[in-house]
Amino acid sequence: MPPLCYRPPTMSLAEGVLAGDRRQAARLLRAIDDRQPAAEEALRALFAHTGRAHVVGITGTPGAGKSTLGNGLIAAWRARGLSVGVLAVDPTSPFTGGAILGDRIRMQDHALDPGVFIRSLATRGNLGGLSRATFDSAKVLDAMGCDVVLIETVGVGQDEVEIAQLAHTTVLVTVPGLGDDVQAIKAGILEIADVFVVNKADREGADRTVFDLRAMLEMRRALLSAGASAWEPPIVPTVATRGEGVDELVGAIDRHRRMLDESGERTRREAARAKTELTQRLSERLLERSLGALAEREGSIDDLALRIARRELDPYALADRAIEALGPEV
Amino acid sequence: MPPLCYRPPTMSLAEGVLAGDRRQAARLLRAIDDRQPAAEEALRALFAHTGRAHVVGITGTPGAGKSTLGNGLIAAWRARGLSVGVLAVDPTSPFTGGAILGDRIRMQDHALDPGVFIRSLATRGNLGGLSRATFDSAKVLDAMGCDVVLIETVGVGQDEVEIAQLAHTTVLVTVPGLGDDVQAIKAGILEIADVFVVNKADREGADRTVFDLRAMLEMRRALLSAGASAWEPPIVPTVATRGEGVDELVGAIDRHRRMLDESGERTRREAARAKTELTQRLSERLLERSLGALAEREGSIDDLALRIARRELDPYALADRAIEALGPEV
Repeated sequence: MPPLCYRPPTMSLAEGVLAGDRRQAARLLRAIDDRQPAAEEALRALFAHTGRAHVVGITGTPGAGKSTLGNGLIAAWRARGLSVGVLAVDPTSPFTGGAILGDRIRMQDHALDPGVFIRSLATRGNLGGLSRATFDSAKVLDAMGCDVVLIETVGVGQDEVEIAQLAHTTVLVTVPGLGDDVQAIKAGILEIADVFVVNKADREGADRTVFDLRAMLEMRRALLSAGASAWEPPIVPTVATRGEGVDELVGAIDRHRRMLDESGERTRREAARAKTELTQRLSERLLERSLGALAEREGSIDDLALRIARRELDPYALADRAIEALGPEV
Repeated sequence: MPPLCYRPPTMSLAEGVLAGDRRQAARLLRAIDDRQPAAEEALRALFAHTGRAHVVGITGTPGAGKSTLGNGLIAAWRARGLSVGVLAVDPTSPFTGGAILGDRIRMQDHALDPGVFIRSLATRGNLGGLSRATFDSAKVLDAMGCDVVLIETVGVGQDEVEIAQLAHTTVLVTVPGLGDDVQAIKAGILEIADVFVVNKADREGADRTVFDLRAMLEMRRALLSAGASAWEPPIVPTVATRGEGVDELVGAIDRHRRMLDESGERTRREAARAKTELTQRLSERLLERSLGALAEREGSIDDLALRIARRELDPYALADRAIEALGPEV
């Protein structure tokens, strides 16, 4: 990534990003977040220049130390001469403005390093909006020349599973001594994690957590069909606050990357991501048209929703009519 | 809800549900989960019979004791002569089969009570699939005559926010002594919670948690525009394992219910839910048609996705063509 420099305002957003201009990249990320039409135009122009970065997702139970670990990963990658882009995905809140201050401030260790570019993504709360914005934002960091793109999510819900689909390598972070409830949640993301981390491994119960994870992974291997990937997800113990285990984690991510390249799995993952992305984009655009046509015929969507709430209208029949409103051929 | 009884197989799913037949209700819930066409037909027939149940959502940080609290709520409502339907929303996993055993087993205290109907919902992992299935399933419990429908979610992500939209009253459960990370996540769901519970209130730090919540709620009041709801979310301390505070929680939910009825807010919430639901249903159906038409013209979606992954195709242009494929008028 070339250092920050002045660009004349006549340069397009996409050109600025390709030249590694951090201000232009930041502008484009804001435009994506705000769903401005300029964002789509720039993304179309950038698409052919994407696909080079290795995208690493880091997710896990709240309080597991993901940001501290992320910080350690950034330092380790920088020491290896790689440029790093970071997307921190936050739950939106009118109170926090989408920023989780403590964690982000820790990441700002690298704020002055021209080889590191960190942005927070607010989540807009609309269906699929979070993962779409994350997909698009990762492309911007890829196109601007980041060797690695690190995506950090908070929590372990469906959003995280969708965002993990975007990553080439998904790292799941857990800590010793969490209750059953949390262990159960982990099961939901177990099948998409490529590397497991037991952070705070100096705590009591760390061996037990590693043991439990190993047992779950063996069960996964037994359940998965024989044709599935030969990759055996490693379990890396770390103490992120002291930097212990970070080099091992970098090594594990690197081995996974090589496996993806050599097995063709990388292309398969990118195809799955492309499918999700196409689907989301299409569904947004179709919905906009269909609701627009329905509103022209039958009144505003808010009025129609109120009539459904009063049981004067049936939502199933209304969906039929919204589809008819698009035209006889549909 | 009438007791379980034998129905001749000629009775439709919808008729069975309206007659309170638990086996037919269970069949319909499975049909919804499996996206069978029979489900939509039955839901269309049931829609006019919905809108009577009070829908309570219970969500919060993992390990906060939501299921134990839910169990206490069920007992308290039953003691008041109300019939209760419960939907437990689980993250899907090939390992657990979508069931979180420990919690569910606790809820089975009420398994033999004919006034209680409990089902787990697996999450299908598709975009919006979880909330759509939950919306539809809640309607089934409503139509079969449950006075209260309790929806329990695991975690505090975007899924939970969507499911909370479905509830008339959303209860957010937290516990003392969680880290900053968790406090931050709570902010994301803060604005949608109607009643706050600090469970495990006999633990050290409970007063501090109540104090922090109160401060956040005061900030919310200050930030919200003057025209917003006059409801001030109460904070209820509980020790669910000993049943302490459960009556107070039932009372708080009841006050919220009366406020909804008296202020007209109930209809506004149902309208917002109807809008979300219409939008999701439409987007699924439109997508199916559009991808079908695209596949006919340009080859299978999987092949197209692979060509995007190889940067031979541009997903933006492809979305344009998928819309064109629906016909010239669209």
